[in-house]
Formats: sequence, structure tokens, C-alpha cells
Amino acid sequence: MTDDAVPSPTWSRYMDLALEEARLAEQRGEVPIGAVLVRDGEILARAGNRTLELNDPTAHAEVLVIREACARLQSQRLPGCDVYVTLEPCPMCATALSFARIRRIYYGAGDEKGGGVDHGPRLYAQPTCHHAPEVYSGLAEQDCARILRDFFQSRRD
Amino acid sequence: MTDDAVPSPTWSRYMDLALEEARLAEQRGEVPIGAVLVRDGEILARAGNRTLELNDPTAHAEVLVIREACARLQSQRLPGCDVYVTLEPCPMCATALSFARIRRIYYGAGDEKGGGVDHGPRLYAQPTCHHAPEVYSGLAEQDCARILRDFFQSRRD
Repeated sequence: MTDDAVPSPTWSRYMDLALEEARLAEQRGEVPIGAVLVRDGEILARAGNRTLELNDPTAHAEVLVIREACARLQSQRLPGCDVYVTLEPCPMCATALSFARIRRIYYGAGDEKGGGVDHGPRLYAQPTCHHAPEVYSGLAEQDCARILRDFFQSRRD
Repeated sequence: MTDDAVPSPTWSRYMDLALEEARLAEQRGEVPIGAVLVRDGEILARAGNRTLELNDPTAHAEVLVIREACARLQSQRLPGCDVYVTLEPCPMCATALSFARIRRIYYGAGDEKGGGVDHGPRLYAQPTCHHAPEVYSGLAEQDCARILRDFFQSRRD
């Protein structure tokens, strides 16, 4: 993190809220991933995964915050908006974040198996990508990874 | 098309309905893309793009039919379901179709600039892809391509 415009305490606060959303998702029996969408210091949306509750495979935290913020701003584009998310976005969410013209993505843990930003298809590096958000990774990485690891461990037990 | 289980008249009928949804989308001022979701000969959902109307960049035809069919079946998985769509799915929709465990995708026109199945990231060929639907392309290709070409031409004029 060397971004002067977003000093450490700011991203830390938003990532804490994303982690809180991940914990709330876990309490609902969902995969514990959370996201917060921010513009100019204002939180426009926050959500955790709700795929089971809503019977909707697209109800990932990132898609939910995009949809909520778009509804709030009455726009399908969110320029100047940043998303904080506990896990590296999957290809579906990475593409949705691009379509929404999200400015920056701050994520916690990398996802070798399911990520679409820095792993797998690396969508923002594709020549066909029209808008590539700036990406900052590894924020609160240990906490973000631990909550997921514990969740899957407890399901195996 | 060499699939004995789905003779020509059947896919042709569903693709005609997808094209009808594309035309209805155009009448609403949306990019003319349509999709139909079918299981065992029953149409579970049909939709055209609604990104502008809903202020939702994720409201592509494919995502809308997935969400509608999932709501109807009260499940976030749609095994045994096939999707007919006029244009090659983008990376967001391709991933959503995989998450939903769609069995087969029949699409019309290929999309060199925005497709995610046979162009760009070719998501189902990625080693990290957990479920790759069978893909049949080029159905009613000329009609599917023409409606999009005419739409963008008329917007440029």
C-alpha cells in the first residue's frame, strides 16, 4: 500500500467492515466473504454472500454491493467508487466490477483456485478488457484467509 | 449441430424465442441480446438485457434467466438445464452459467471483443473452471449478429 490518497487507517476501517460482513455471512451459513463499496468516504453499500439464502448463484458480495449502489445512484456505472472485499474476486465478479467502472479494488486474500484478477483468467490483463480497475491486494490478508479456512475446516469436520 | 438429443427444430424454436427477447430488449433501448432457459422441454425463464432499465450492469439476459429459474426452482444450481442465447456470453455470464451448473449453452453469434467462452479468457478452458457446460455455437448466427449490427449502426447514425 503506497497510495497517498488512501492512508492506512482508511482502508483498514473499510476492510474491517468487509470482514464483519464476512462473519455475518458465515452466521447465515454462507461462504464467509464480505464487501464494502465506498465513494468519497461514504459507504454506499455493504454485503456478504447470500447465494444460499437468495437461491441465486450470482449473489456474491461484490455483485450485491454493485447492485445496491447502482440502485441507490440510479446508474449502471459507478465511476469514482472503490470496493473493499475480503477475497480476490472470481471471474464473474471481476467482470461485473469492470462493467460498473469501479475505480479501485482492495482485496484481502488471494484465491488461487477461484480468483479471476491475479489468478486464473486474470481478466484485467486480457486485451479485450475495456476497463481495468486499479487493484491492491493483501490487505488484512491473514484475517481474510483465516475466516475462510476455518469455515471450510469446520464443514469438513 | 450433431446432437441427436436436440434435433434441429427444437433448438431453432428456442433460438427464435431468444431472438424475440433480443428484439423486445431493443424496443426498450437495451442492447438486443436475448436468452431462454429450458429443462426437459419446459421453458423455465426467458429474458432480454435490462441493464439500463434496472440500473444494473449485471442484468444481462443470461444472468436474468439464471436468477429467474433459480427463484422458480428454489435452488442455486440448475443441473439438466440448457441456455439458448443470441450472443456468445461475456466472462461474467460465462462464469455465472458455470456456477449454476448449466448443462449446455447454445449461442448464436460469436463475440470477438466481449465474449468469454470461445474468445478472450475462454473461461471453460481454464484449469480453474469447476464446471464447463457443453457449448454449441453458430445457431441462427446471421440473424443474431444482424440485430446487434443494425442496433449499433443505428446508434452511430
